[in-house]
Amino acid sequence: MRRRLTRFTDGIPESVDDVLVEEAPVEFRLGGVPIAVLMRTPGHDEELGLGFAITEGIVLGPDEVVRVRQHSTDAGDRFDIELASGVEIDPEQFRRNLFTTSSCGVCGKASIDAVRVASRHVPDGPALSPGQIERLPSMMRERQDAFAATGSIHAAAAFDPEGSQMAIREDVGRHNAVDKLVGHLAGRGWPIAPLILVVSGRISFELVQKAAVAGIPVIAGVSGASSLAAELGEELGMTVIGFVRDDRFNVYTGADRFS
Amino acid sequence: MRRRLTRFTDGIPESVDDVLVEEAPVEFRLGGVPIAVLMRTPGHDEELGLGFAITEGIVLGPDEVVRVRQHSTDAGDRFDIELASGVEIDPEQFRRNLFTTSSCGVCGKASIDAVRVASRHVPDGPALSPGQIERLPSMMRERQDAFAATGSIHAAAAFDPEGSQMAIREDVGRHNAVDKLVGHLAGRGWPIAPLILVVSGRISFELVQKAAVAGIPVIAGVSGASSLAAELGEELGMTVIGFVRDDRFNVYTGADRFS
Repeated sequence: MRRRLTRFTDGIPESVDDVLVEEAPVEFRLGGVPIAVLMRTPGHDEELGLGFAITEGIVLGPDEVVRVRQHSTDAGDRFDIELASGVEIDPEQFRRNLFTTSSCGVCGKASIDAVRVASRHVPDGPALSPGQIERLPSMMRERQDAFAATGSIHAAAAFDPEGSQMAIREDVGRHNAVDKLVGHLAGRGWPIAPLILVVSGRISFELVQKAAVAGIPVIAGVSGASSLAAELGEELGMTVIGFVRDDRFNVYTGADRFS
Repeated sequence: MRRRLTRFTDGIPESVDDVLVEEAPVEFRLGGVPIAVLMRTPGHDEELGLGFAITEGIVLGPDEVVRVRQHSTDAGDRFDIELASGVEIDPEQFRRNLFTTSSCGVCGKASIDAVRVASRHVPDGPALSPGQIERLPSMMRERQDAFAATGSIHAAAAFDPEGSQMAIREDVGRHNAVDKLVGHLAGRGWPIAPLILVVSGRISFELVQKAAVAGIPVIAGVSGASSLAAELGEELGMTVIGFVRDDRFNVYTGADRFS
């Protein structure tokens, strides 16, 4: 979004036009009942709805969703997640569960168990090589169009085991970028093939959790992983990689995928 | 937290000890009822509880809270927010409101109105100078101890109008760093004096909202502000500053504080 702002350079103010990263709320509904409101960058909202439903364990896969459809635009953006016939999810229960699940997070081991139950089988592959990992951030950066315009937006990208980029999504929210990407990939084939997920920021517990539930075995970031992210990745047999640079990176867990 | 990991340098793996940013869940309770579970970096949890209660509009100020006290440590970290006598808040209602409030976010204007109602009077001051703003990030960085150790943690710092640093808090979560800082400041005097809030990352709608509710008129970041963050700041008469560098920065709104 273009906006007029005052740029100070060496103390001198100047009025300039600049591009700001867009942020706006979106509401997702299940059977007409609001289940989540997210602050996101508009665009790819159907993918966001599908990816969110998958990585939060609301649905077991894209076959349980007929489509995600814009509801109305009169007062913001509302989307309906339409379930396949025969799939019954009580949205009220899910709303309660959202909180319950968060609460479970408090009991560390129980939470990790819950994630493991919700997770796809995390695939054994892919085999990784250092040269391939080192190239990922620059390959991702080449396609971070919104970042190039604004200097301030997160990205998540998927690479196949050969290291070629399959897709990228950008969003003001770290989680949203991953959910959009998962929604995109899930719409093209399920389960998702064994992929490498690359994120532009820190690797938190929740990002590892989302990758695991989507069946993505490898997550790499240009920043570091938290303690709990590394522990969860280890429990689930994933590979978690941080601080990826041109000539170095840290493997917190799952280094055995480097053959 | 120290952890053994595999560092690849020029393709050669080496086992090293490294310091990871700590991430763990914390639960806050009101009258024994869990109202929020946050993934945070342990430490300053009493400040986090108080700051969260203030910036989320659960309490109107620190005088409504007697203390925030650790409940038990048997299954994670639980803290009770103990209300002052005479202050009655129905935690069940608040839990519902948490969702309702988020929903309101969808109706943009209504949300901004709600924030304005919840906001302190945003003070007119302080007067700002370009030289003072340009120095803020480096002054903050000097005290980002956890960042120096891990390379991967957010920070929020408060500066008085003369540009001297009053306090800094670090956390794996952007919002938590601000809430810890607000809790710290609110415990030392209320309302908080007209301050400059500096954050290490992007300036989102929610960060501007938290600053506004805490009565902090100026927010500056080393990265950019989102469209909605700039709009909210403008509506509330705040100054929102992004991309602060040694010789330049962008003022999205409220440039009139530069005298």
